[in-house]
Amino acid sequence: MPRYTRGRITMPRYKLTIEYDGTGLVGWQRQKNGLAIQEIVEKAVFRYCGEDLIVTGSGRTDSGVHALAQVAHVDLPRENDPEVIRGALNHFLKPYRVAVLLVEEADPDFDARRWARKREYLYRIINRRAPLGLDLGRAWHVGGPLDSDAMAEAASVLVGHHDFTSFRDTACQAISPVKTLERLDVVREGDEIRVRAEARSFLHHQVRNMVGTLKLVGAGKWSPDDVATALAARDRRAGGPTAPPDGLYLVRIGYSA
Amino acid sequence: MPRYTRGRITMPRYKLTIEYDGTGLVGWQRQKNGLAIQEIVEKAVFRYCGEDLIVTGSGRTDSGVHALAQVAHVDLPRENDPEVIRGALNHFLKPYRVAVLLVEEADPDFDARRWARKREYLYRIINRRAPLGLDLGRAWHVGGPLDSDAMAEAASVLVGHHDFTSFRDTACQAISPVKTLERLDVVREGDEIRVRAEARSFLHHQVRNMVGTLKLVGAGKWSPDDVATALAARDRRAGGPTAPPDGLYLVRIGYSA
Repeated sequence: MPRYTRGRITMPRYKLTIEYDGTGLVGWQRQKNGLAIQEIVEKAVFRYCGEDLIVTGSGRTDSGVHALAQVAHVDLPRENDPEVIRGALNHFLKPYRVAVLLVEEADPDFDARRWARKREYLYRIINRRAPLGLDLGRAWHVGGPLDSDAMAEAASVLVGHHDFTSFRDTACQAISPVKTLERLDVVREGDEIRVRAEARSFLHHQVRNMVGTLKLVGAGKWSPDDVATALAARDRRAGGPTAPPDGLYLVRIGYSA
Repeated sequence: MPRYTRGRITMPRYKLTIEYDGTGLVGWQRQKNGLAIQEIVEKAVFRYCGEDLIVTGSGRTDSGVHALAQVAHVDLPRENDPEVIRGALNHFLKPYRVAVLLVEEADPDFDARRWARKREYLYRIINRRAPLGLDLGRAWHVGGPLDSDAMAEAASVLVGHHDFTSFRDTACQAISPVKTLERLDVVREGDEIRVRAEARSFLHHQVRNMVGTLKLVGAGKWSPDDVATALAARDRRAGGPTAPPDGLYLVRIGYSA
């Protein structure tokens, strides 16, 4: 069992895979203005082991954004069967819409944020006249017609190694605006348009700003060439608006084996 | 435009197709113990036209049960563009998780309940150790392993023209317990097991009682033969338990053209 020694105490590190519905929460990271998923998980950890411990996520998710499999790490005061830890945490996570899918023993150096090699997001748009019933808070409702083929063509313009300043929130604290977008697919299935994005890392609001821009293309207000022009401008004012958080899902964090 | 004459007033009839999340509601039909979807829709109709009118659904759905496309009819005091009626009703349905997908002019004799020729339901089981995060209230969580092939085999025993007393709630008011179950499929997709049921009509709790029984087979407690024996007993005490409402979705009501 790998261990991390803090002073004279041995603290085994665990990797947690966590699913959540972000509706009504302020996002992964602890904030002053409301309840964060990190806080909910840390409270469950406290109720499990009686210690106030930091649970470190792979990255922030915004207020209202969901996760199918966020990854985090935590150093617990003592070893236990991962299945038992999972059961206990899930017990203490009730009644929140937050569930620990998996607990694994981790390398003592494992860092959920720094070791992440790939981040995958899904953005769901429901494109129909009627507003959302079952999917309220779970997707972006766009009432007017969207041409998903045009959106897919525009998305291909953004794939690759680029300066994404035009799609970066002005509050973004990343050192460089240059990222490699490995995938940006747009697929329609009936009323639903699914945008899938993959990169080693993303800038703040990058996925939502790209989706807000693709929506302009789908609605016929922008051409794919306009997206290329916006990208080349390296100016946030040249990019499209930010899509709402409701449709965004953190799907997977990839780590090198 | 077809019309229905009530006294001296002409009342055009409209067919409504309605999606809803049944969580926290007492089901389609008005009850004394809480808020019903019927009531929510009737209030929206009142705010649209200023009259207290009955909205008649294709049938009840239980407390907590969802609908992708419930069908109802209502006689409005005056004609209007169906798109305008839909927009107004959806405006007044906020903030409920209830949406009118479609409004259509209907035959003056159209009856959402009596004219229904087919009812389709979906039942979602999430079969994994971890509890539900995103799907809380939207699926039945079964933690222990389920053999979906055995469930599919047992389901085939129930398809056909049978006396379904063993799967009928004791409070059921149907005249006959004999129904023709046209389809009962069980398909696994990853962690999710989807049961699809189709019939002209179902007895009270019939789908949930059949699913609760199939779960016993999936868990290895019953064999498909035990299901045949339970069916033949024509006794509710011989059938399996009632599955929770969370996983049940009314998918479609079919009408003859």
